Amino acid sequence: MSYDPNNIFGKILRNEAPAIRLYEDDQTLAIMDIMPQSAGHCLILTKEPAETIFEMTPEGVAACMRTTQRVAHAVRKALSPEGVFIGQFNGAAAGQTVPHVHFHVIPRRQGEDLKMHAREMGDQAELERIAEQIKQALE
Amino acid sequence: MSYDPNNIFGKILRNEAPAIRLYEDDQTLAIMDIMPQSAGHCLILTKEPAETIFEMTPEGVAACMRTTQRVAHAVRKALSPEGVFIGQFNGAAAGQTVPHVHFHVIPRRQGEDLKMHAREMGDQAELERIAEQIKQALE
Repeated sequence: MSYDPNNIFGKILRNEAPAIRLYEDDQTLAIMDIMPQSAGHCLILTKEPAETIFEMTPEGVAACMRTTQRVAHAVRKALSPEGVFIGQFNGAAAGQTVPHVHFHVIPRRQGEDLKMHAREMGDQAELERIAEQIKQALE
Repeated sequence: MSYDPNNIFGKILRNEAPAIRLYEDDQTLAIMDIMPQSAGHCLILTKEPAETIFEMTPEGVAACMRTTQRVAHAVRKALSPEGVFIGQFNGAAAGQTVPHVHFHVIPRRQGEDLKMHAREMGDQAELERIAEQIKQALE
């Protein structure tokens, strides 16, 4: 696969599109998913130009997981969900909707089903409120 | 959470229970899921005594992802699925069924739904045949 930088996550990484940012380092950027499957759904983007995990370096993958663990800790501290789902989808057949590698951190709550992936916009004010809680927990 | 080593993955890591092994290093063990959600479903176990990702070291998490990427490459090479799902579930509310951290690598094929998680035993001969293909691709 050849990477097309003209996707929404590529634009966010280049500051050409808005995002609610949670954390950034040399190799990764963590943001709120604007179409959350549950309240507190976060995304960790690699800064490598990669559509799927198969084009990534092992170092880049490890960096994503370090940030993912860090964000998951903050989500748990901020929101206290009973469970936390971590997922990374490669290919449309696996549910990938944006052709740039990203890891999902999705709070799970007993008896609450997930909303469909990438279907419904979240409320901007609520997303920003939750993001503030997660950012405080990251500090 | 306090880790209880008397779970099936703890036993497999100590060679007290059988498993179809794919790959092993100092920090991780990759095996076939004996209740596959699709053909070629693999699991990567950490060797850290951890029920969820929240008790793991960042190094242990990074090691899991390196092995997960390696196994995902081999699954793709061996089985050519259209997509590959990578997932790690923390807590029953997130779908965790064994209280020892493990990462799922699940081949996804267009138009094929996943089987329910941890419900139905796979055919042992077929699991071993697929494991051989994946092991060859790992070399």
